[in-house]
Amino acid sequence: MSILLGLVIMASLLALGYAAFNFFAVKKMEEGTERMQEIAAAIRTGANAFISYEYRILYLVVAIVAVLMAIVTTWHAAVALVIGAVMSGCAGFVGMKIATYANVRVSNMARETGSIGKTVKVAFRGGSVMGLCVGGFALLGLFIVYMVFGLAMDQISVTDSSYVNLLGMKFVPFTMTLSGYALGCSIVAMFNRVGGGIYTKAADMGADLVGKTEAHIPEDDPRNPATIADNVGDNVGDVAGLGSDLLESFVGAIASGIILAYHMFMQSGALGTGMTEALLRKCILFPLLFVSVGLIACCVGIASLLIKKKMSENPHKELNGATYVAAGATIVLGFIAAYFLFLGEDPAVLKASLGFAVGSISPWIAATIGVVSGVVIGIMAEYYTSSDYKPTQKLAHASVEGTALTITQGLALGMRSCMAPCIVLGAGIVLSYMVSGMYGVSMAALGMLSFVAATVSVDTYGPISDNAGGIAEMSGLDPSVRKITDTLDAVGNTTAAIGKGFAIGSGALAALALMISYLYSFNEAGTDLILNMMTPMILAGAIIGAALPFLFSGILIEAVAKAARKMVDEVRRQFKLYPGILDGTQTPDYKTCISISSKGAIGEMKLPSLLAIVVPVACGFLFGPEFVGGLLIGSTLASIMLAIFCGNAGGAWDNGKKYIEVGGVEGHGKGSETHDAAVVGDTVGDPLKDTVGPCLDIFIKIMSTVSLVAVPVFAKFNLVDLIAKFFG
Amino acid sequence: MSILLGLVIMASLLALGYAAFNFFAVKKMEEGTERMQEIAAAIRTGANAFISYEYRILYLVVAIVAVLMAIVTTWHAAVALVIGAVMSGCAGFVGMKIATYANVRVSNMARETGSIGKTVKVAFRGGSVMGLCVGGFALLGLFIVYMVFGLAMDQISVTDSSYVNLLGMKFVPFTMTLSGYALGCSIVAMFNRVGGGIYTKAADMGADLVGKTEAHIPEDDPRNPATIADNVGDNVGDVAGLGSDLLESFVGAIASGIILAYHMFMQSGALGTGMTEALLRKCILFPLLFVSVGLIACCVGIASLLIKKKMSENPHKELNGATYVAAGATIVLGFIAAYFLFLGEDPAVLKASLGFAVGSISPWIAATIGVVSGVVIGIMAEYYTSSDYKPTQKLAHASVEGTALTITQGLALGMRSCMAPCIVLGAGIVLSYMVSGMYGVSMAALGMLSFVAATVSVDTYGPISDNAGGIAEMSGLDPSVRKITDTLDAVGNTTAAIGKGFAIGSGALAALALMISYLYSFNEAGTDLILNMMTPMILAGAIIGAALPFLFSGILIEAVAKAARKMVDEVRRQFKLYPGILDGTQTPDYKTCISISSKGAIGEMKLPSLLAIVVPVACGFLFGPEFVGGLLIGSTLASIMLAIFCGNAGGAWDNGKKYIEVGGVEGHGKGSETHDAAVVGDTVGDPLKDTVGPCLDIFIKIMSTVSLVAVPVFAKFNLVDLIAKFFG
Repeated sequence: MSILLGLVIMASLLALGYAAFNFFAVKKMEEGTERMQEIAAAIRTGANAFISYEYRILYLVVAIVAVLMAIVTTWHAAVALVIGAVMSGCAGFVGMKIATYANVRVSNMARETGSIGKTVKVAFRGGSVMGLCVGGFALLGLFIVYMVFGLAMDQISVTDSSYVNLLGMKFVPFTMTLSGYALGCSIVAMFNRVGGGIYTKAADMGADLVGKTEAHIPEDDPRNPATIADNVGDNVGDVAGLGSDLLESFVGAIASGIILAYHMFMQSGALGTGMTEALLRKCILFPLLFVSVGLIACCVGIASLLIKKKMSENPHKELNGATYVAAGATIVLGFIAAYFLFLGEDPAVLKASLGFAVGSISPWIAATIGVVSGVVIGIMAEYYTSSDYKPTQKLAHASVEGTALTITQGLALGMRSCMAPCIVLGAGIVLSYMVSGMYGVSMAALGMLSFVAATVSVDTYGPISDNAGGIAEMSGLDPSVRKITDTLDAVGNTTAAIGKGFAIGSGALAALALMISYLYSFNEAGTDLILNMMTPMILAGAIIGAALPFLFSGILIEAVAKAARKMVDEVRRQFKLYPGILDGTQTPDYKTCISISSKGAIGEMKLPSLLAIVVPVACGFLFGPEFVGGLLIGSTLASIMLAIFCGNAGGAWDNGKKYIEVGGVEGHGKGSETHDAAVVGDTVGDPLKDTVGPCLDIFIKIMSTVSLVAVPVFAKFNLVDLIAKFFG
Repeated sequence: MSILLGLVIMASLLALGYAAFNFFAVKKMEEGTERMQEIAAAIRTGANAFISYEYRILYLVVAIVAVLMAIVTTWHAAVALVIGAVMSGCAGFVGMKIATYANVRVSNMARETGSIGKTVKVAFRGGSVMGLCVGGFALLGLFIVYMVFGLAMDQISVTDSSYVNLLGMKFVPFTMTLSGYALGCSIVAMFNRVGGGIYTKAADMGADLVGKTEAHIPEDDPRNPATIADNVGDNVGDVAGLGSDLLESFVGAIASGIILAYHMFMQSGALGTGMTEALLRKCILFPLLFVSVGLIACCVGIASLLIKKKMSENPHKELNGATYVAAGATIVLGFIAAYFLFLGEDPAVLKASLGFAVGSISPWIAATIGVVSGVVIGIMAEYYTSSDYKPTQKLAHASVEGTALTITQGLALGMRSCMAPCIVLGAGIVLSYMVSGMYGVSMAALGMLSFVAATVSVDTYGPISDNAGGIAEMSGLDPSVRKITDTLDAVGNTTAAIGKGFAIGSGALAALALMISYLYSFNEAGTDLILNMMTPMILAGAIIGAALPFLFSGILIEAVAKAARKMVDEVRRQFKLYPGILDGTQTPDYKTCISISSKGAIGEMKLPSLLAIVVPVACGFLFGPEFVGGLLIGSTLASIMLAIFCGNAGGAWDNGKKYIEVGGVEGHGKGSETHDAAVVGDTVGDPLKDTVGPCLDIFIKIMSTVSLVAVPVFAKFNLVDLIAKFFG
């Protein structure tokens, strides 16, 4: 066992070490011309300022939640929550930091070498820091929690509700500790995603609405006062936000796997099917082990690209290659881990107590199903949003008929695109259950996330390239540089769509796994796990739950629109006040725009973020755990659809516009009415794909996590039970 | 008992008689000038041609389904299906017919008298024919089915699966017969809604896209070749489609109430809680009785407006008055019915076997909860879509910032608007269950629909007034006439929004009630009713089910866009070929446009309509009844959200545009850029609110109904069971 634990910490340190190596390798590269350095510094300062301000609010919320948790649940959980928040915060911070170093170095590499291959490497090396930090920090924190609370304080062998807290309430200590850790990561992810998402789109929409539509200047034009804010947004939204989000999914999947193993042990013990404590420990260790080998596999995958002497000039293929190497290696190493860990256990016991239908490799098969489903869902997102395929091309052609049909067609595309990934998800759930029971469903979630370091690296590559293009444009570099970064950026758009499909798929499975753990937490031991939709309370919860993501999304869109409107006013004001800006004789006031985005994002992020945290808890205390169970399933179902819809519609509008720009629709190029219509589509899609969709991933996970933490309390104290008791 | 049955047929005949009286009262009015007569005749001919063509396809589908049903289920069900289809078909046909007579008479009344009050009366009298036909025909068919199969063939006293069909399969005969009747109504509703919905919006969008946006001629301008087709669309979509849809909800709620009573009796008999056969007969009779008194109440409500000597000049108040009188009278008469029907039954037995917590008036309370919920949901829809309130005003102001923010703000409004009605639905379900158990939930659905004749009358008033305005415009009547019809039309817009909220609310409850019956059909007697979301098959079904309405909506939107595009091409062609059209010296070719709309609608309606019918059956045979249970709950949840979203976003865009036109946004009137942006919003919203939203109501109901009919077959024969048997 201790060897295996050694593997866990080794994997974590390897990833963090490799991240540090890449960090400094990038940082020591040349930044280029003075103008480039200036701009990069402005972006960096803006991003730092926002993150540090956001983190101040964030840590206040974390502190409040931690104190509350220490009082009403266990102090261990409160400490674990803080550890989780610190880990997630660090990953987001380091990743954003390197992104703001890498962007300018990417432009410079393009400027100096003119080689796509070399430029891609810089961008990917930068992105890999974020990816490796996500895996490394998450695992490091889990290892600490496991060692300190699980082993040193021996919580791991306590498998009943025997810990009594300050208020005299009883808890299963280790599951509560783990839930606390997951919640810490969730809260950080929520704020990073929502805050970053509003920031980036407020700046982007604001810049576009005046710049492109009114002043007719191109994107990233230095004359646009909002352009630096737009570039800052990429770093705080698409880098830090994305990293914390995936970290949260990753932790959620691991934690729910472990918690589920606990509950299955408790159930199975009561039923007398003979799951031994040794087997429980293996079930707890397996998720940790699987993600550890996954993380090692990711280091291999990332290195396979970075050490390449001769890169092909097709960045998309290279990036996919790194991901596939990581995924493949995860599957191979995972097999070894599963095989040896569960080898020697009696297949009959495995089948009876855990539902392992295929013996010791069952959980590996389930995890592999997850890996494959994740890849397939990503490919589907690519199909719907890349201009290489029919749907987006059709959308681009609809722009010829004007704005209304552009919007209509995009809505239709987004709606139609929901079915295919849902079939994959559904099949994944059924198959993984058939192979390994409920534990299998949670292992499928784990599998999908096990190579998260690779996918996040690729995802982060996108905004870094985007920024690099912005810097090239603003520094007035040779158009050939911009051409290289544009190639990189176009690939980044596709990888972003794949990443988004992947994020919602894995988020959905992680949320479902957390929901299973949630249900175990208040269902009596020895009973089957039931969430019966024919119970009126659960049904009502599901209906209201399904409306929640819509409410959340509506609030988010309005938040972006509101912040964007302020940006529009400011840009217009500057253009009016200083007519020299548009002639290029006056420098615009970038700082005011940055501060508007920051203030807007900070101001607007509170309501939606708190909604996700407060609603399930409040509903729990009012209507009891069954209602919250319905709420979770309803909001998960609706969020999956809405997130896919938003991601694909937005992605297709964006790429449809680009398709028109490169001459995909004959006779209707840049500057035509068709292009104008496509720009409107892109602007409408922006908050959908970059704010609403990504925030919905974390929305469902944080609701599940917060419910999991609070359920021991509101299962005992809630208004409905109180009334029922009062009346009879 | 026979007195009570007499009341049912009396109510039906009263409604149909009153409908006939109003029909001829309207028909004998003056049609006005020759030009008006010509235009009205053109609209009437177009509508007739479409309906008769549509009905030919429809009856082919009905015939095929009936033959299939006769073979695999029971021949009684097949006959009942045909009766249902005929009743629904008649209601839609008569309602459409009168609408095409009433429209021109409304214009003429406005022209001759200049009185809003008198004009409203004509429009409402026309609408009342549709409303009364919906209630009257539905009840007449049910009465026939009840008398012939229930009593004469004594199916009603057979409460077990003892009927053996041609293939040797067993059925509970009366529940199957009733399901067949409901399915007949469903199929007609599906085709009328989808076909009509595509027709009306293809014509409307086509007319707007060229007329308003390119040629800058006002709506309903006779120079626009698509304008007659647009007016035909109102009659086939908003009148016939709406009527069949609500008839289907009405029948679904009654049938599911009766079927549920059966299953509860079977369950309760096995459990020995003592539900007697006499009590069963009362439970079967109550839904019929309640809707009968509801129908009588509607006659009273409608008459209360029509016999008024002195009408106020506020049509909105008058129309609401009629609905409230009907709803109030339903509640009062329903109380008497419930009280006397269940009086004398032992409260303990009622409580144990039916969950009647408040004795004999329990089902009445549940139904009243439904009535109140329906009214409240309607009011909420009004709040979100009427320009009297903040959300739509805010949307109108967003148009100042351009098209993109108009769309964004509208999407946000639609999303936010989902929560409030869902809370009402959730509360309605929980409360009605507390009062009267599962039977109560189905009675709440019934209550919401019991005054359907009044709501449909008010809803139909809208398109009649809209058409009247179109005729006034096209006949070149005095602007004062158009002003009166505009007033009527504006009220119609609000009542339409209320009607849509009401349709989705009642549809959702009816679908849930059908789902309860569905679950009873294959769950073993004596067990609790369970739809456990933690069963992987059900969960997978729910995820895929939730994606279905999105797929369906996407297909529908594309269908409208495709048909609209053809219309655009035709209108452009005519403008180019005959330049005299725009000068008013040449008459456009209306007929070609009508035929394009017809062909487009007929061609495009097949895929989505069949999707709704085929998917649940195919899934049943492949994956079994549990999967379909998940499919139903998932698609119901997603459909509710999507329908509310579409209805409110679309309604708000429409009214936001009107708000700008009447000068609601200072400095930005008709013809401004702000108005142009609002027009784009309106065009985007059109297919959402008038095609997608309404079709989703019927989508969930037909899926539930078709599953209910097919479940006895696929519960026995399905691939999953086959494989399971094969492997062990």
